[in-house]
Amino acid sequence: MGNLLQGKKGLIFGALNEQSIAWKVAERAVAEGAEIVLTNTPASLRFGTINELAAKCNSIVIPADATKVEDLELLIDKTMEHFGGKFDFILHSIGMSPNLRKGLSYDDLNYEYLNKTLDISAISFHKIIKAAYSKDALNEWGSIVALTYLAAQRTVCGYDDMADAKALLESIARSFGYIYGQKCKVRINTVSQSPTLTTAGSGVAGLGNLLEYAEAMAPLGNATAEDCADYVLTLFSDYTRKVTMQNLFHDGGFASMSMSHAAMSIVEKGLKE
Amino acid sequence: MGNLLQGKKGLIFGALNEQSIAWKVAERAVAEGAEIVLTNTPASLRFGTINELAAKCNSIVIPADATKVEDLELLIDKTMEHFGGKFDFILHSIGMSPNLRKGLSYDDLNYEYLNKTLDISAISFHKIIKAAYSKDALNEWGSIVALTYLAAQRTVCGYDDMADAKALLESIARSFGYIYGQKCKVRINTVSQSPTLTTAGSGVAGLGNLLEYAEAMAPLGNATAEDCADYVLTLFSDYTRKVTMQNLFHDGGFASMSMSHAAMSIVEKGLKE
Amino acid sequence: MGNLLQGKKGLIFGALNEQSIAWKVAERAVAEGAEIVLTNTPASLRFGTINELAAKCNSIVIPADATKVEDLELLIDKTMEHFGGKFDFILHSIGMSPNLRKGLSYDDLNYEYLNKTLDISAISFHKIIKAAYSKDALNEWGSIVALTYLAAQRTVCGYDDMADAKALLESIARSFGYIYGQKCKVRINTVSQSPTLTTAGSGVAGLGNLLEYAEAMAPLGNATAEDCADYVLTLFSDYTRKVTMQNLFHDGGFASMSMSHAAMSIVEKGLKE
Amino acid sequence: MGNLLQGKKGLIFGALNEQSIAWKVAERAVAEGAEIVLTNTPASLRFGTINELAAKCNSIVIPADATKVEDLELLIDKTMEHFGGKFDFILHSIGMSPNLRKGLSYDDLNYEYLNKTLDISAISFHKIIKAAYSKDALNEWGSIVALTYLAAQRTVCGYDDMADAKALLESIARSFGYIYGQKCKVRINTVSQSPTLTTAGSGVAGLGNLLEYAEAMAPLGNATAEDCADYVLTLFSDYTRKVTMQNLFHDGGFASMSMSHAAMSIVEKGLKE
Repeated sequence: MGNLLQGKKGLIFGALNEQSIAWKVAERAVAEGAEIVLTNTPASLRFGTINELAAKCNSIVIPADATKVEDLELLIDKTMEHFGGKFDFILHSIGMSPNLRKGLSYDDLNYEYLNKTLDISAISFHKIIKAAYSKDALNEWGSIVALTYLAAQRTVCGYDDMADAKALLESIARSFGYIYGQKCKVRINTVSQSPTLTTAGSGVAGLGNLLEYAEAMAPLGNATAEDCADYVLTLFSDYTRKVTMQNLFHDGGFASMSMSHAAMSIVEKGLKE
Repeated sequence: MGNLLQGKKGLIFGALNEQSIAWKVAERAVAEGAEIVLTNTPASLRFGTINELAAKCNSIVIPADATKVEDLELLIDKTMEHFGGKFDFILHSIGMSPNLRKGLSYDDLNYEYLNKTLDISAISFHKIIKAAYSKDALNEWGSIVALTYLAAQRTVCGYDDMADAKALLESIARSFGYIYGQKCKVRINTVSQSPTLTTAGSGVAGLGNLLEYAEAMAPLGNATAEDCADYVLTLFSDYTRKVTMQNLFHDGGFASMSMSHAAMSIVEKGLKE
Repeated sequence: MGNLLQGKKGLIFGALNEQSIAWKVAERAVAEGAEIVLTNTPASLRFGTINELAAKCNSIVIPADATKVEDLELLIDKTMEHFGGKFDFILHSIGMSPNLRKGLSYDDLNYEYLNKTLDISAISFHKIIKAAYSKDALNEWGSIVALTYLAAQRTVCGYDDMADAKALLESIARSFGYIYGQKCKVRINTVSQSPTLTTAGSGVAGLGNLLEYAEAMAPLGNATAEDCADYVLTLFSDYTRKVTMQNLFHDGGFASMSMSHAAMSIVEKGLKE
Repeated sequence: MGNLLQGKKGLIFGALNEQSIAWKVAERAVAEGAEIVLTNTPASLRFGTINELAAKCNSIVIPADATKVEDLELLIDKTMEHFGGKFDFILHSIGMSPNLRKGLSYDDLNYEYLNKTLDISAISFHKIIKAAYSKDALNEWGSIVALTYLAAQRTVCGYDDMADAKALLESIARSFGYIYGQKCKVRINTVSQSPTLTTAGSGVAGLGNLLEYAEAMAPLGNATAEDCADYVLTLFSDYTRKVTMQNLFHDGGFASMSMSHAAMSIVEKGLKE
C-alpha cells in the first residue's frame, strides 16, 4: 500500500488510545500520504494517549467538545489555519451513553441522560458538519464518515439507547448528505462496523461472547479496527466520489447472515445443555 | 365492516381536528367496537375540536403533554381508572418541528429547536411506552402504533429535522418492541403513511405538488387518512399478534417505486420546459 | 372473530395437509365469511388430504400444476365459473427445491434443478398472476399474497437455492404489483413467515434447532401457521387496501433482532462447551 | 492514483465497447497495476471492439458463453494457465433480456425468454462463481463483483424482467458469498450503479429522460461508467477485505433520495402543463 490519500488533508475525531478505530484511521491515513489534525474532548486528551499518536503522525491536537458549537467553530478555523486552507475529509468516531454507563436499562432510561447520549453520539455529527459547511471548510469531492453499528437496524440486547443514537446518526448522514452533496460535492456516509474491542466497545456487557458468536456467524470473521481503518480510507479517497448517503456494512458479512453452520453448531451445543 | 376491535380498549394521542389521522383512527376504532380515551396537549385541546370527537366516540379527553413524564403517568393512571383496568392499544400520532415552523433549513438548524423536535416527535414515544410499561397498563397481546414517514429512510427536501425525528421514532419502536414483546407480549410497530393533508402535514412547503406527484408514482394512489385508520385497526386487532418491531409502508406502493409511467410523463413534460 | 372476509371469494394454492399454512388460511378465510376454491398439483392431491379440507370448507378442488400456463388458464376459467364471475384474493404457498431434496449443496447446484426450483417456487407466481390479470379475474381492490422467508435477505445455511427463489418471488411481487395496482387496483404482497413445521419446511435440515433458537430470539416467539393465516386474512380484507409491493415480516420480531438475552444465554452455554 | 491493484490478477466479463462499464474497469485496473484476462461471448467479440481493449491492456481475450458450464470451466483453466496460477478478482457485467428486446411488457412475458433473461443475467453469476470455486481459482482475500441496478428493490417502469434478474443476481451474491467467504476468504458483492448510457443500457426505453431526472435527484449527480470503474477497483483492492454479501449503491446518492429541490422543480413544471 502506499499513496491512496496522497495530498489529502483531514480532521479526525475520537482517537483515545491505541484500541480506538480513529487511532488506526489516523495512522493508516498518514501512511497513505494524508496530513491530519486530531481532536478530542479535553477530558479524553487527559485520559488517553493521543499525544503519542500526534507525534507519530506529525500532527497537531486541537481540543474540542463535539457537543459545543463554539468549540467546533474554533476547531474548524484552527484546522483550516493549520492546513493553510480547505481540507478533504472528516472522521466522526464518537459515542457515549450515560444510561449505558450507569447500567440504566432501556425501559428505565433517564431522559436527561438520553439527551446526552443523542447529543454526544449523534447530534455532534450534525454540529461538526454544520461548522464545516458554514465555513466552507471542505474541498469539492470531500468526504465525511461516521462510525455506526448494526443495532441501528436490528436490536442487540444490552446496547441500550446507543441503538437509537446510531439510528439518528445514520439519518443525519442522509439528511446532510443531500445538502452538502448538491451544494459542494461533499459526500457523507456511515460505516457500520463489527463489534470491536475498543475502550468504548468494552462498556457493552457481554461483548466477549457477542464477538465470539459474531466471529462464527460472519463468513469472513469480524472486521478489526485495522480492517475498518483501511475501509474508511477508501471512502476518503478519490475512488469513491459518487458514494453518498449510504450506510455501509463492514463486518465480514455478518449483517447479511441469519444463520451459519459455525454459529449453528454453537447454538446446538447450547440447546443441548 | 363491523367488529374488528370488539372488546378492545385504547388510548389515542394526537387527534386535533377532522383532518387528523388520529381522529379517523378514533372514529373507526369505535365503529369497530372499541372503547377509547383521547388525549392531546392543553394547547391542542383549545386550538382543535377534539371535544366534538369525544362526543361522537362516547369518549373522555384527558389533557397531557406527551413530553412530560408526570403528565403521562397521570394519563395512564386515569385511563386505567376510566377503563377499570388494563387496556389494549395506543396510537402515537404526534410530530412537530420548531425548525420547520420557523423556516430554519437543515443546514441552519437551531439546536434547542432540534431537541424539541426530537422530544415532541420521537422521545415522547419512549416516554409514553415507558409510562404504560412501568404501570403494566396493557393487556397481553396489546399493540402500540406510531405514525411515521418515508423521509426516515429517503431524504425529502424541505422535511427538515423531522426526517431525523422519524428515524429516531422508528428506532424506539424496535428497541422498546424487543423489551415489551418478550416481557408482556405487547407489539410495537410504526406505519409509514403517504404524505397526508393534515394540519401538521400542511406545514411542509410544497406539499400539494408532492402529493400530486406521489399520486402519480404510487400504483394505488396515495393512502388517505381514512385508509390509514383502517390499516392501523388491523394492527390493533388480534389478527396481527406476531407482527412487531416493523416499519410498515402504507402508501399505495410508493416506497417500492422508483419510476412509474404516470410520474415519468410528468417528468418528461417538466424536462421539455 | 367473525366476518373479516364477508362476501369475499378467493383461490388458494398449496394446501397439502393440516400442517400447511395454506390449509390454515383456507379454514380461517371460510370462518371469516369467504368462499374459496382450492388447488394443488395432481401429485399433491394424491399425496395429501386436501379433499378433507374441501369438505370442511364447502369448497371445490381444481387440480393444476402452477408451472403450466395452460393449467393456470383453465384454473382461472373454472374458478370464475364456480364463483359466477370475478373473485377477490389469491394465496400462493408453493415452494420446492429439487437441489435441497437431493442434498445438493449451494456450491454444487444442478442447474436443471435450479431452473425447477425457480419455476416452481417463484415463476409460478408470475404465471398465476398473469393468468388472472389477462383474464381480468380479480375485482378492484383484490389482493394477492405469496409466502416467503427471511433467507431472501439474509443467508440461512442449508436453505440452499430456495433463498434465491424467494428473492425472485419477492421481486415478482413488486414488479407485477406496480402493473396490477395501477391498472386494476389489485395489490400484491409477500408475507415473510417464521420457519414453520410444515411438510415443506421439514425438508430443511436442522429445522428443529433453528426453530428453537428463533423462538428464543423473537420477542413474541415464532409465528405459527395459525398466526400466519390470521395475518394473511388482514391482507385479503378491505382494511389494507393501500398496502402493496411490500414484503411483510410475520415472525414475532425475529427479523428486527440481532441478539436477545434468551438467545445469548443459549450461545453462552454453547461457547462454554 | 497509481498502484491500488499492484500485483493483482483478474478476469473481466462483459466488455463490449468503449461505453461498457467492464471496459472502463479493465482500463482502470491495468492502470492501477493489475493484470487482466478479458472474456465475452463469441457473438459479442464479433459485434464489439474488445480486441482493441486487449491490446491497450496487454491482455488476452478468451471467448466464453457465461451460460455454459463447460465454457466457463475451460475459461477458468485457461485463465489460470495464463496467470500461472490463482488469480484475485472477477467482474460480472452481463445482462440481457429477450423480453425487453422484443418489447414484451412485464404482464406479457414470454416464459422461455424469461428463463433466458435469468440465465444470462443472473444464473451466469452462479455458474462463474461455481467454476472458480470448484477449481479453487481465487487467492485468499479474492474479490468478486457483479453490476446491478436499483430496480431490484424499487420498480422502474419499462425495465421489465431485468428487475427480477437483478434481484436474483443480488441474492446469488449473498448465498455464494457466505460459502466462498467462510471456505476461502473470498468476498462477493454487487454494485448498484446509476443508469448508464452503455450499449446495454440504451435498450431501456426513455433512458435519456430517466438519466436527466436522476441527475437532478442525485445530490452528486449520476455516477458515470468511469466513476463506477474506480469504485469497483476499491472492492478488488486489499482495503475492503471484510466487505462481503453487500449490495453497494453507487449512484450519487439517488437511492437515498425521495425528492430533491432540483427534481421537484422539474415536477412542478410538468404538473403545470
